[in-house]
Amino acid sequence: MEPVVGEKQRNVQRSLEFIERAAANGAQLVVLPELCNSGYVFNSRDEAFALAEEVPAGPTCRSWEEVAHEHGLHIIAGINEREGRSLYNAAAVIGPSGHLGTFRKVHLWDEENLFFEPGNLGFTVFQTPLGRIGTLICYDAWFPESFRLCALQGADIVCIPTNWVPIPGQAQDREAMANILCMAAAHSNSLFVAAADRIGVERDQPFIGQSVIVSYTGWPIGGSASPDREEIIYAEANLADARRGRNWNAFNQVLRDRRTDLYGEMLGAKASPGWY
Amino acid sequence: MEPVVGEKQRNVQRSLEFIERAAANGAQLVVLPELCNSGYVFNSRDEAFALAEEVPAGPTCRSWEEVAHEHGLHIIAGINEREGRSLYNAAAVIGPSGHLGTFRKVHLWDEENLFFEPGNLGFTVFQTPLGRIGTLICYDAWFPESFRLCALQGADIVCIPTNWVPIPGQAQDREAMANILCMAAAHSNSLFVAAADRIGVERDQPFIGQSVIVSYTGWPIGGSASPDREEIIYAEANLADARRGRNWNAFNQVLRDRRTDLYGEMLGAKASPGWY
Repeated sequence: MEPVVGEKQRNVQRSLEFIERAAANGAQLVVLPELCNSGYVFNSRDEAFALAEEVPAGPTCRSWEEVAHEHGLHIIAGINEREGRSLYNAAAVIGPSGHLGTFRKVHLWDEENLFFEPGNLGFTVFQTPLGRIGTLICYDAWFPESFRLCALQGADIVCIPTNWVPIPGQAQDREAMANILCMAAAHSNSLFVAAADRIGVERDQPFIGQSVIVSYTGWPIGGSASPDREEIIYAEANLADARRGRNWNAFNQVLRDRRTDLYGEMLGAKASPGWY
Repeated sequence: MEPVVGEKQRNVQRSLEFIERAAANGAQLVVLPELCNSGYVFNSRDEAFALAEEVPAGPTCRSWEEVAHEHGLHIIAGINEREGRSLYNAAAVIGPSGHLGTFRKVHLWDEENLFFEPGNLGFTVFQTPLGRIGTLICYDAWFPESFRLCALQGADIVCIPTNWVPIPGQAQDREAMANILCMAAAHSNSLFVAAADRIGVERDQPFIGQSVIVSYTGWPIGGSASPDREEIIYAEANLADARRGRNWNAFNQVLRDRRTDLYGEMLGAKASPGWY
């Protein structure tokens, strides 16, 4: 998608068109980009706030609930969320019977820190008839902890609304680094990853597209999508295969092999040892 | 390298030749493959035990100490280590003044479980004049926790003696999954990674070569090496750049951005929640 900052009604309408088209092609689980209702590059907190809505009470979430109900599908959609005076860079998780829950971006990127509160809901895995669904947003995927905490709660797939920006040093003849992070995480957690990115340039900030759907093996099964053209990518997957795939041989099951006896408390430690 | 199982003297001699050649080309830090003294595919524990040595008291480690001293360089070398009745799949960390310490493979792969004890020394980062050096071995790199625990202890580079085996579903036109894991870990921890793999087929077990040196940016700066030919790969790097590179913008420093307030105790938890 190419959301346009400020044009919320247009953006949401466009998201509904994409969902309808995906449903017509058999989609049961649809992932939309980060902040796909509001756009991304705000000039001020006031602008960001004016474009935010309550989740699920606001009209954007309600319209996604309607289309999810109509087509019996699940939607993970990036939304600019308002709760009281606080703004969150959030993802609404919606099923055929309505809003299942919300994920709020845990790791804020760059000037998002000027507008949004850091996510305060942790990493939740939603149980659905399709499988167990975890959600991250963009920079969250730079932290292997994010995927791991989804996997440790049983996620079969991690859905990632995102607005990926160019990475310094990205070689044109190589996979996007964002895609590499998704592949590594899918492989080392044995879970599917579906990342929906936006395209376009907004107030001089380019976005890289290249949405991708990755199998639990770590190999892409959908995309990567165009870097500069709106496009729906599809993959057919039995999410339960992620669980089967965790047994790699007679000795190794990738999640059970974790050496928690040695990891100690440093991974979750609140105090910095001062090295970094 | 292509070590040959059982031919320890020949393997060690070959490792010394490679180190000499690397030194002649200016190498200051040399990484050798996993179990490069003994070979990898043992028929029995007795065979594995007969090929093991004490570290650093055994002759293999002593000969690496000598060459490190002579050329003023550091060596990270995979070694079949014996301590009393226990065997470890280990890496000797050696500097110009001798043995600095040992890493013992934490996550054992497949039939290694028949021969070796799981590593019991945790993840240690060695302070050297070149920078801070962490060490992992092969399957350890499938666990993002391994890289993270090195990074959290200040590692500028993670050196990986390895014996990578083929991954199901590896597409021939894509980067090896092992390389993808190294790139993702380098990028998301802002540290260098140098992985030295073996080549060849040993008792029907093929190995994939493709050793790689990755910058702290996540992009390869050496290799990947040949999949089937012995080869030294080189890269020139100022390891301190890894520390500078962690500041990504006015708001984000990739290690400090960890949300330890939300990660909780699950990452290091000893009890399985039963999901996997």
